[in-house]
Amino acid sequence: MFGCLVAGRLVQAAPQQVAEDKFVFDLPDYENINHVVVFMLGTIPFPEGMGGSVYFCYPDQTGMAVWQLLGFVTNEKPSAIFKISGLKSGKGSQHPFGAMNLPQTPTVAQIGISVELLENLAQQTPVASAAVSSVDSFTEFTQKMLDNFYNFASSFAVTQAQMTPNPSEAFIPANVVLKW
Amino acid sequence: MFGCLVAGRLVQAAPQQVAEDKFVFDLPDYENINHVVVFMLGTIPFPEGMGGSVYFCYPDQTGMAVWQLLGFVTNEKPSAIFKISGLKSGKGSQHPFGAMNLPQTPTVAQIGISVELLENLAQQTPVASAAVSSVDSFTEFTQKMLDNFYNFASSFAVTQAQMTPNPSEAFIPANVVLKW
Repeated sequence: MFGCLVAGRLVQAAPQQVAEDKFVFDLPDYENINHVVVFMLGTIPFPEGMGGSVYFCYPDQTGMAVWQLLGFVTNEKPSAIFKISGLKSGKGSQHPFGAMNLPQTPTVAQIGISVELLENLAQQTPVASAAVSSVDSFTEFTQKMLDNFYNFASSFAVTQAQMTPNPSEAFIPANVVLKW
Repeated sequence: MFGCLVAGRLVQAAPQQVAEDKFVFDLPDYENINHVVVFMLGTIPFPEGMGGSVYFCYPDQTGMAVWQLLGFVTNEKPSAIFKISGLKSGKGSQHPFGAMNLPQTPTVAQIGISVELLENLAQQTPVASAAVSSVDSFTEFTQKMLDNFYNFASSFAVTQAQMTPNPSEAFIPANVVLKW
């Protein structure tokens, strides 16, 4: 379903599936990696309403795994380039790989992909320094979510003439949603 | 043999083979492309002593194809990321796709890969603004070529005691090659 490519190295197309919805690629010699490309192979799409959050995982000085959210892949944005050089100084972020206890080797990092609801992805903020072309993707992705919400919400829109009398029901003017 | 990935889009793994040693990927809607990844699929390596030069081709205002050298892929560096946004202002460079007459469509650009001798690749200079992670690759690649040449040349090195008398034969001190 997924491929992973370290710039300058051979492509990987066989991640380790560590849970039904979680996939992991090993990145040997990760301190010499600048950019990583994560992409869908195009064989199997995400189930409708789902997408993938992409994490970088590296061992800290004590050998503990530190996870950082790089960004997302979805059926509409099936690939992204991330810059991982320089991420080691950052803090770890919340992540869904907690119970996995992936074995950590000093020179080997991981790319983890977690399949989740698009609504959940939209609430997560990737580390800013990882963005290469994913900045645009993320902005567009968020815009798309808002558009979808507006389309969803406005499908319920009524004019005052169509309202059935019910003084306790609240209405939000459609242009409030648009402005937001 | 090759794959091509526009950041944000699905991967392409079936280039058009326009000659025995030339491969072309179409890039629709190329004005909205920032980064392109070119990589070997890992199935078939280059023949020994060969590598690939990677070109970006776009139509100029008159519809003529302009080719720019982005960089290289080799068995030792089987992938590279190139930044193609901003290349349109540049001039075209020499290229080996001259006689192909690829049909040009206003919104469609191409990635062309030409399989050539490594020695030839080392004499070509990619457009500087295309380099993402390929800067390092190119520098390393050139360094490797120089190393190879030094190893090759120094395998013929002799000391004066080993020289057979022949006043007309010229010798280059090994440290001259090293300094170069």
